[in-house]
Amino acid sequence: MHSYETDGSAIYARSFSIIRAEADLARFDAEEEPVVVRMIHALGMVGLEAHVRFSAGMVPAARTALQAGAPILCDARMVSEGITRGRLPAANPVICTLQAPEVAELARSLGTTRSAAAVELWRPHLDGALVAIGNAPTALFQLLNLLQDPAVPRPAAIVGCPVGFVGAAESKAALLANPPAPALAVEGRLGGSAVTVAAVNALASRSER
Amino acid sequence: MHSYETDGSAIYARSFSIIRAEADLARFDAEEEPVVVRMIHALGMVGLEAHVRFSAGMVPAARTALQAGAPILCDARMVSEGITRGRLPAANPVICTLQAPEVAELARSLGTTRSAAAVELWRPHLDGALVAIGNAPTALFQLLNLLQDPAVPRPAAIVGCPVGFVGAAESKAALLANPPAPALAVEGRLGGSAVTVAAVNALASRSER
Repeated sequence: MHSYETDGSAIYARSFSIIRAEADLARFDAEEEPVVVRMIHALGMVGLEAHVRFSAGMVPAARTALQAGAPILCDARMVSEGITRGRLPAANPVICTLQAPEVAELARSLGTTRSAAAVELWRPHLDGALVAIGNAPTALFQLLNLLQDPAVPRPAAIVGCPVGFVGAAESKAALLANPPAPALAVEGRLGGSAVTVAAVNALASRSER
Repeated sequence: MHSYETDGSAIYARSFSIIRAEADLARFDAEEEPVVVRMIHALGMVGLEAHVRFSAGMVPAARTALQAGAPILCDARMVSEGITRGRLPAANPVICTLQAPEVAELARSLGTTRSAAAVELWRPHLDGALVAIGNAPTALFQLLNLLQDPAVPRPAAIVGCPVGFVGAAESKAALLANPPAPALAVEGRLGGSAVTVAAVNALASRSER
């Protein structure tokens, strides 16, 4: 039989301790540091921190919004399903519109991807929301275009971590160059649902387990 | 307005082309190569391939099982939710027992994590199944211990890609050292739900989109 550590709290504590010993976290402030640590944990990758960028005030903006009951708008089910409901401070609604029945037709009529079309269905929920994009660069581009209309309500903060080889780096560079709300992003190709979920879970609660 | 590639098929094609140009895929056979490409795609990380290991015959074993209707046993909702149902060849059941009501009590009585306890509930489904572990090292250790009992039915194949800093590398080394069924793993700390889902989606269908 393989013997292994069976205490979940001990596993978390040792993992976070290894990350803090190995990662270069000096440029993050005390609010940002635990968010980055949890993102490194989710990806199993010390070194990720070199690619993480926050715009000013992102962490307090996201925490305040979540405490006030803000909804969390997710681009993919792997993001919405990964968010730990017990960490949310106000039983916040977690919304993913990608599977809505009108998305396929909307994507055709807009001439874009289903992920981008699903962002159009965020409009009634955007005001003061936390946005969590962890999969599709096209969703982040669509959000940035939507928010160029000053009549569209602003989210409170944006976690923008789409992943991949086409559009991911470009969409995150566009977000960071001119953030329409306080933003967190992983520059370049890296990102994904796991780091996005980790960031949201860290913003939702300071508990490190 | 930001202009961006809005054709999902074109995005996939260009992404896979970039991966094949940049990654070192020479040591994988023709069955394994598309699985590794999709895993790199999910993580946005050329270089992942250096850590990917297949035991002999893993890909054919998994494909044959899925075509015969094998269930897919997942350790986390981010894995079960990420598997693209339209790619499954036989409307295969996708099972995640982590949220079963008896898991908390079972974890207490076994003195282990909820993720490991949930694996005990796989017993009635294990025979000929595809196992997909993308989160918890304790789930993989528990499965390896369970399969030391020769009376327990064998899965057809195992995707073993738990992630992290405590137990992940060790559990995957144990899997690869003595695989109880044909296995695929990412050695070391890297892994996670995204690469696990990508592997299952590639095993389920040869379609590259």
